[in-house]
Amino acid sequence: MKTRLTELLGIEAPIICGGMMRVGTADLAAAVSNAGGLGVMTALTQKTPKELHDEIERCRTLTDKPFAVNLTVGVVATKIDYDEYVEVITRSGVKIVETAGRSPEPFMERFKAAGIKVIHKCVTVRHSLAAERLGVDVISIDGFECAGHPGEHDVGGIVLFPAAARALKIPVVASGGIADGRGLAAALALGCDGINMGTRFMATQEAPIHDGIKQKIVEMDENQTQIIFRSYRNTARVYKNSISKKVAEIEAAGGGFEQVHEYVSGTNQEKAWTTGDIEAGMVTAGMSGAFVEDVPTCKELVQRIVADAEQIIKQRLTNMVG
Amino acid sequence: MKTRLTELLGIEAPIICGGMMRVGTADLAAAVSNAGGLGVMTALTQKTPKELHDEIERCRTLTDKPFAVNLTVGVVATKIDYDEYVEVITRSGVKIVETAGRSPEPFMERFKAAGIKVIHKCVTVRHSLAAERLGVDVISIDGFECAGHPGEHDVGGIVLFPAAARALKIPVVASGGIADGRGLAAALALGCDGINMGTRFMATQEAPIHDGIKQKIVEMDENQTQIIFRSYRNTARVYKNSISKKVAEIEAAGGGFEQVHEYVSGTNQEKAWTTGDIEAGMVTAGMSGAFVEDVPTCKELVQRIVADAEQIIKQRLTNMVG
Repeated sequence: MKTRLTELLGIEAPIICGGMMRVGTADLAAAVSNAGGLGVMTALTQKTPKELHDEIERCRTLTDKPFAVNLTVGVVATKIDYDEYVEVITRSGVKIVETAGRSPEPFMERFKAAGIKVIHKCVTVRHSLAAERLGVDVISIDGFECAGHPGEHDVGGIVLFPAAARALKIPVVASGGIADGRGLAAALALGCDGINMGTRFMATQEAPIHDGIKQKIVEMDENQTQIIFRSYRNTARVYKNSISKKVAEIEAAGGGFEQVHEYVSGTNQEKAWTTGDIEAGMVTAGMSGAFVEDVPTCKELVQRIVADAEQIIKQRLTNMVG
Repeated sequence: MKTRLTELLGIEAPIICGGMMRVGTADLAAAVSNAGGLGVMTALTQKTPKELHDEIERCRTLTDKPFAVNLTVGVVATKIDYDEYVEVITRSGVKIVETAGRSPEPFMERFKAAGIKVIHKCVTVRHSLAAERLGVDVISIDGFECAGHPGEHDVGGIVLFPAAARALKIPVVASGGIADGRGLAAALALGCDGINMGTRFMATQEAPIHDGIKQKIVEMDENQTQIIFRSYRNTARVYKNSISKKVAEIEAAGGGFEQVHEYVSGTNQEKAWTTGDIEAGMVTAGMSGAFVEDVPTCKELVQRIVADAEQIIKQRLTNMVG
C-alpha cells in the first residue's frame, strides 16, 4: 500500500504506532517498524535523557527500519528538561519525531537542522493549521474516540479526519477509534494518508505490558471507556473501571483537582500495569478496543490490517461501484 | 452504486434523508426520492393523522419513486395517538417506514402485515440487535456527531458504524457526521450499506426552511454545535447559539428540567425557523454542517455525493493499493 505518508517516511504500511507512555519502548517500536509500520518510542518513558539515548541505541540493534521518537510536552506534572531530551534526539540520528501536547515551535529549528521529519499530534483543525505553518511534515489528528487526551471539543473522527484532511496540504494521519482494515480503508477514503493506533498495539505480543491488561482490551467493547478530568479542562479517556468511575463521581460532585489527585494518588497504577489487575489503577485505553479480539504479533497485525483494507477496496467497494 | 440497501429498498443511491421534524414534508421527501435517494416524510410534522394522510397523497403526486414515512415515538412531550398515525401509514400504501425514539415492537405486526419494510433508527449496538430480533429490515445507527438525539453513550461514527455493521446481519445505514462523498465511501468501507443525512439535506433548494437557516449551515464548522439536556438524560445536539449556551449554563449550574423548560418556552423557535434568525430559538443541526458549503438541489447533491464516492473508490483508493 502506497500513500503520501509511506512515501514521505519510507515505510511500507501507512500505520503508525501511538506514542504511549510506559508502552512505547524500543521493543514495541522495533516490532512495529519491522512489521512495516512506523514504531514510536516515547521519550518520557525513559526517566532521563541518558536513558533515552541508550533506548534509542537499543532500538537500532532491533531494527534497521525507520522508527520515531515521541516527545510529549506539558502533559505530565513533573518538571522535565525538554531541551536535554531534544538534544539527545537530534544527536541520535533518529529521522522522525512525533511531537504532542503543546506546540512544537520551540524545538522546530533544532529538529529541522538535524534533518528530522516532524509529525505533530493535535486534536483540532485550528492547531493543525498552526503546526503546518510552523513547518511540520505530517499532522496526526486525534478524534474524540482516542485514548489519552482527546481535548475539549469532542469532535469524532468521522468528522475531524476529513475536516483536517480538507484543511491541510500536508499528509494527515487519522488517530482514535481505528484498529482494523475497515478503519484504515475508511481513513483513506476520508482524505487521510494513514492511521495511528495505540490501544490496538497494546494488545500485541511485543507490547511490554502485562497479559492481563491485553486480555481486558480483547474483552472490552465500545462502551468500556470513560471521559474524566473534563471539569479541569484536561479531558482524558481511560479504561472504565472502579477508579475512573470514582473520579467521575468526585468531579460530578464538584470536587476540585486536588481532591481527585489525592484519591488517585491512593490507588496503585503501577500495580495495574505490572500485575494486570486493571482495577488497581487507571489504565489508558481508547474506544477502538471494541475491535481488538486477539493478541497477535505486530507483524501479523500490520499484515492483516493492510490485507483487509486492500480487500475492502478491491472487492467490496469496487463491486459496489460496478 | 449498488449495495444491499439500494437492492432492498429499490433506490438508486444508498442515501437516505434524515427524518426531520418540520423539514420532512412531501416536498423534500419527493425531491430526495426523485434524486435517486430515499426521501423521508416525518409523520409528526403533520398535526393530525388526517393531515399525514393528505401529505402522503401529495407526496405521491410529486414522485413515483419509493419514499418513507418516519414515525418517532416518545420524544415530543405532547400526547400523541400513535395508533392512528400507524393506521394512516399502513393504509396509505407506503412501503417503507422509519421508526425512531422507542422500540418499534408495538407496531411491527401491523407494518409487516401491510408489507412495509422497517428501518429502525437507534444509537447503540444493543438496541440495534434487539430491533433486528424484532424483524426490522434495516438499522440506521446514529453516531455521537448527529443532530437531534445521539443518546447517552457518546460513541462516534468511526467506532459505532463498524461496531453495528459487524454485529448485525441486516443492512446498516451510517448516520451522523456525513455530508459528502468521502463520508459515503468511508461508511461503505466500515461495513455499512448506505448513509443517512439530515443537516446536509436541510441546506438544499427543496428543504422547506428559511434561507437564513440554510446559510448558517453553510457557514458553520465542526465546533458550531452544542450538546444540551445531558443532565436530564435526554441529550440533544443543536446548533450552538445564545440560547443553547444559556441552556448549557442552566444545566451546569444544576438547574432542573423545569427551569430549562421555562427558559426555552420564552424563546421563539417558530421565529427562528420562519425568519431565519437563528438566535431566536433552538435549531437542530449536526456536526456534518462543517462539510456543507452550498445549497444545491437534491438532485445535484445526490449525484455529486455518489460521483465523489465513486471517484474516491476507483481512483484514490485503487491507486493506493496498486
